Amino acid sequence: MTHARLTPLAQSLPATVPFVGPETQERARGAGFAARLGANESVFGPSPEALKAMAASHHWMYGDPESHDLRAALAAHHGCAPENIMVGEGIDGLLGYLVRLTVGPGDAVVTSAGAYPTFNYHVAGFGGDLHAVPYAGDFEDPAALFAKAAEVDAKLVYLANPDNPMGSHHSGADLARAMDALPKDTLLVLDEAYVDCAPEGTALPLPVDDPRVIRMRTFSKAYGLAGARVGYALGHPDLITAFHKVRNHFGMNRAAQAGAMAALADRDHLAHVLDQIAQARSRIAQIARDNGLTPLPSATNFVTIDCGADGTFAKAVLDALIARGIFVRMPFVAPQNRCIRVGCGLPADLDALATALPQALAEAKRG
Amino acid sequence: MTHARLTPLAQSLPATVPFVGPETQERARGAGFAARLGANESVFGPSPEALKAMAASHHWMYGDPESHDLRAALAAHHGCAPENIMVGEGIDGLLGYLVRLTVGPGDAVVTSAGAYPTFNYHVAGFGGDLHAVPYAGDFEDPAALFAKAAEVDAKLVYLANPDNPMGSHHSGADLARAMDALPKDTLLVLDEAYVDCAPEGTALPLPVDDPRVIRMRTFSKAYGLAGARVGYALGHPDLITAFHKVRNHFGMNRAAQAGAMAALADRDHLAHVLDQIAQARSRIAQIARDNGLTPLPSATNFVTIDCGADGTFAKAVLDALIARGIFVRMPFVAPQNRCIRVGCGLPADLDALATALPQALAEAKRG
Repeated sequence: MTHARLTPLAQSLPATVPFVGPETQERARGAGFAARLGANESVFGPSPEALKAMAASHHWMYGDPESHDLRAALAAHHGCAPENIMVGEGIDGLLGYLVRLTVGPGDAVVTSAGAYPTFNYHVAGFGGDLHAVPYAGDFEDPAALFAKAAEVDAKLVYLANPDNPMGSHHSGADLARAMDALPKDTLLVLDEAYVDCAPEGTALPLPVDDPRVIRMRTFSKAYGLAGARVGYALGHPDLITAFHKVRNHFGMNRAAQAGAMAALADRDHLAHVLDQIAQARSRIAQIARDNGLTPLPSATNFVTIDCGADGTFAKAVLDALIARGIFVRMPFVAPQNRCIRVGCGLPADLDALATALPQALAEAKRG
Repeated sequence: MTHARLTPLAQSLPATVPFVGPETQERARGAGFAARLGANESVFGPSPEALKAMAASHHWMYGDPESHDLRAALAAHHGCAPENIMVGEGIDGLLGYLVRLTVGPGDAVVTSAGAYPTFNYHVAGFGGDLHAVPYAGDFEDPAALFAKAAEVDAKLVYLANPDNPMGSHHSGADLARAMDALPKDTLLVLDEAYVDCAPEGTALPLPVDDPRVIRMRTFSKAYGLAGARVGYALGHPDLITAFHKVRNHFGMNRAAQAGAMAALADRDHLAHVLDQIAQARSRIAQIARDNGLTPLPSATNFVTIDCGADGTFAKAVLDALIARGIFVRMPFVAPQNRCIRVGCGLPADLDALATALPQALAEAKRG
């Protein structure tokens, strides 16, 4: 009876979770993970200033629905106006609002096969028709994405740069050039969640006002505040303003707003974290090579490791790591699913990985 | 050009904010408020245990997308199963998901004229057709609401008990009896945000499994955690499960999950707050009477004060209070808008109110 109350679209949707959380896996195995390296979080943590700001927050007050002060700080940081910025409950929340604003039943949307599943979840959730193009090797393929967008008259095309789950990236200049082929009625959703971890020149070098693109950024990765849920979109003011039509105006955690501001201001901590990330990437790559595996170059806070065979084998390696208390994840589709994805960790986390990986490989090879 | 990318429904929606936040008003007036009594927050604050739990949270980790531990604690508290509970980003967030699940373009929804505008915002946002029935005096009118629901074949009917903005309440038993007239295809959305502040017997005394109703609860009021954004829905498992189809699975702030659990466990603090609320209600009522105004009985953490004339006069009183640094709000529609709504405050807050109210009344009478 309850089910009959749902809209036809809601009835057609699965009750799904795009990612199973590590806590769910811990409950299932009856033990915690020794190393939490699977969710692309930042084990290096947020700025101590962010911790202080969150602790000093008046939790009894609702957050400012305009996120005025945070938007002002972000505008100063990016050299744009606050009107170019929408703060939301993580990039996931902002992607949901964006899809709701632009995609109706039957509208075409384009992404890469094996790219961010939460974006796909939102597209399905509003009845959109998702078209996926293959990666070109271990890279998302802007030319193919934009060609498909033209072919299907897409409302949105999603591209993550740097890419998750492969860790690869394009230079911002190359991407800007590729956008010459972006159809004029297609909006590029450029997910730059990992751009803070990427080489100089990865961020798209176009004005924030460019109406062809909306960029997504987050405090969940390099800034170490995944638990706080603070993402933001950068874009043309007309599009940014449209979020007010549908968003949960009082959805932002007040302490998180304050924590994000403090994190943004602490450039020394960010530099420290980026140094830690660089060291961890090198160590993970070395651990992979020590075990005869191939680490892919990474522009992110994780390293994707080619296990040298197919998805079944990589899954066996992953399962054997998880059984040994090492939480990692892996790509969803072939051929990327020949890999596992290992987040940057503290030395102790990577020691645990170094111990577990040869055992996991041996177990996977036994089959 | 950007605008043309929006769906027809999104194009039709205004870029609105259901409530202007106090920070916006502070920026406009160039000064902070001396007393923040307008947003139905709890100036008495959360449990010290909640503060400790939030400070101890690992902010670098995403929150558990299942809110497993919090749901288990809530299930124990309510004597139901975790499957009866959905945790979300405040009641506002949960109302948005619920409307999305059940209301499509042209579907009828019923509420009271002057009831919670954020619910109306969500209904409009999904193209629903909202029908409003008048209050009966200062009370929402279940019989009239359910009769209108039958007349228009409503998918949802919204009722807050206790009511905001009037502070009135029905006994749960009366409401349960009134539900005999609820149409079988209409779901009752029972907003019990203020029920923790209400007399014994206000909560609906029906099993949580009853498929005719979904109940909304929050940590934003008596528990003093408005800034944390933690609400939950209680309902039939089929309906609760449906939220997984559309929600932002990783939308919950991790520290907020921990804070809510600690707040729930600290019954002494809740009792202390309820005592403070009772004292503050009495004092606000006395201040109103001292100024020749009529305080309405309150089952909430605010007192609605009848200013004795029309909406124009009450608005003049409100503006004069705001000009004196007292943040309060008022009902939106006649005849409720003859009132102002004053949140429970600390003694110093109410001292400020006692000083400002006679001045504000004098100013309003001068016109």
